[in-house]
Amino acid sequence: MSETYPMQPVGVVRSAFREKFGIPRQPGLVPAAEAVIELLPPANQPEAVRGLEGFSHLWVVFVFHACPAGEWHATVRPPRLGGNERVGVFASRSPFRPNRIGLSLVKLEGVDIRPGGVSLRVSGADLLDGTPVLDLKPYLPYVEALPGARGGFAPAAPESRLAVRFSAAAEAVLAARPDLPRLRELIGQLLALDPRPATCREEDRLFGFRLHDVDVRWRVAGGEAIVEELCTAQ
Amino acid sequence: MSETYPMQPVGVVRSAFREKFGIPRQPGLVPAAEAVIELLPPANQPEAVRGLEGFSHLWVVFVFHACPAGEWHATVRPPRLGGNERVGVFASRSPFRPNRIGLSLVKLEGVDIRPGGVSLRVSGADLLDGTPVLDLKPYLPYVEALPGARGGFAPAAPESRLAVRFSAAAEAVLAARPDLPRLRELIGQLLALDPRPATCREEDRLFGFRLHDVDVRWRVAGGEAIVEELCTAQ
Repeated sequence: MSETYPMQPVGVVRSAFREKFGIPRQPGLVPAAEAVIELLPPANQPEAVRGLEGFSHLWVVFVFHACPAGEWHATVRPPRLGGNERVGVFASRSPFRPNRIGLSLVKLEGVDIRPGGVSLRVSGADLLDGTPVLDLKPYLPYVEALPGARGGFAPAAPESRLAVRFSAAAEAVLAARPDLPRLRELIGQLLALDPRPATCREEDRLFGFRLHDVDVRWRVAGGEAIVEELCTAQ
Repeated sequence: MSETYPMQPVGVVRSAFREKFGIPRQPGLVPAAEAVIELLPPANQPEAVRGLEGFSHLWVVFVFHACPAGEWHATVRPPRLGGNERVGVFASRSPFRPNRIGLSLVKLEGVDIRPGGVSLRVSGADLLDGTPVLDLKPYLPYVEALPGARGGFAPAAPESRLAVRFSAAAEAVLAARPDLPRLRELIGQLLALDPRPATCREEDRLFGFRLHDVDVRWRVAGGEAIVEELCTAQ
């Protein structure tokens, strides 16, 4: 029997993503996906991030906390393969994995130090709101930037991109929410990636996900994503 | 209080490195540093690595098990800064960190499947023998290769490289150990990086570390690393 290692969060993510559906499948694909990582005690010390601002990118090691512990299988069906071909869990970045550990490369936008608290502003994030962060590390380009590496079944960024259109009703809600200035851009970048499940891509079917306190209702028709409604969640 | 997440190893590292001293400070710097990752039950299933051979590089998420749990400070003194300048622990890759989680990018040399066991042969490893592995993930160049990223205090590979010379006695031991065919190359690549502690770099001082079952005794003189003795450990 091997030892068990207890891990305690050093931080927590605050992001627009309130559910798994809609979250980009890799970081960096949606620059408008901003998030804040709040450090938790005893790690929330300004000294703990000294010098971090010299790095443009940051590794976030986190727990896929919305996936129940222990729910993993030896193979998974990645969306990149259309959802019907199986690869090994260790050949995938699926959240359903033995230790539920996630690894995301995000852009560091700023380090905020306030009395009693340290937080990091990042972008290009694919992190659910409330995600427990186990570690933060600087990205080392001289070691970790290997453009010639072979990327298996995911050699390049996903190609299918949709045009995105907002209905008049949706535009009216956006105009009434100056407190969410980047919501339009975020929705546009998310839907352009076509977040529909690989196995369920009918035209005109209505989909929805929540960003901040807003339910985004959209469908795809004629190769275009249409944002039908934006409803403030009750 | 935040939740604690118990993590169980999915594998264990078998490598030449029997102590921390001498291990390259980043992966990839020493191509001859080969290691084997043996999967552990319940993860040691051939299905769990299906498709992994399509990727040239692999992330290893592991525990710095030789660093006692809880022994971390908000700042560390990275060797890259000469060992006397402090940076935040989250701006460093130091093993002395809150959750002792390490992250290494290694080259995947092969996947070995035998009855009852799965193991991965990797190179460019900076992993201590016996390291518990928490997760394995494919490297995704389209997301993770960012050659333009800003690398803070470690923007490029370390420059100081030593020439390496073997004494006649050391050559005789190498000749008598055909079971370790890459030991000479490994020692050469390790010493070229000058593994002396930043704060303790006198010429002619004798240093030693163990690789496999061999104690390597060496010193630096006149800008050259000299392997004086290779002793089979008792």
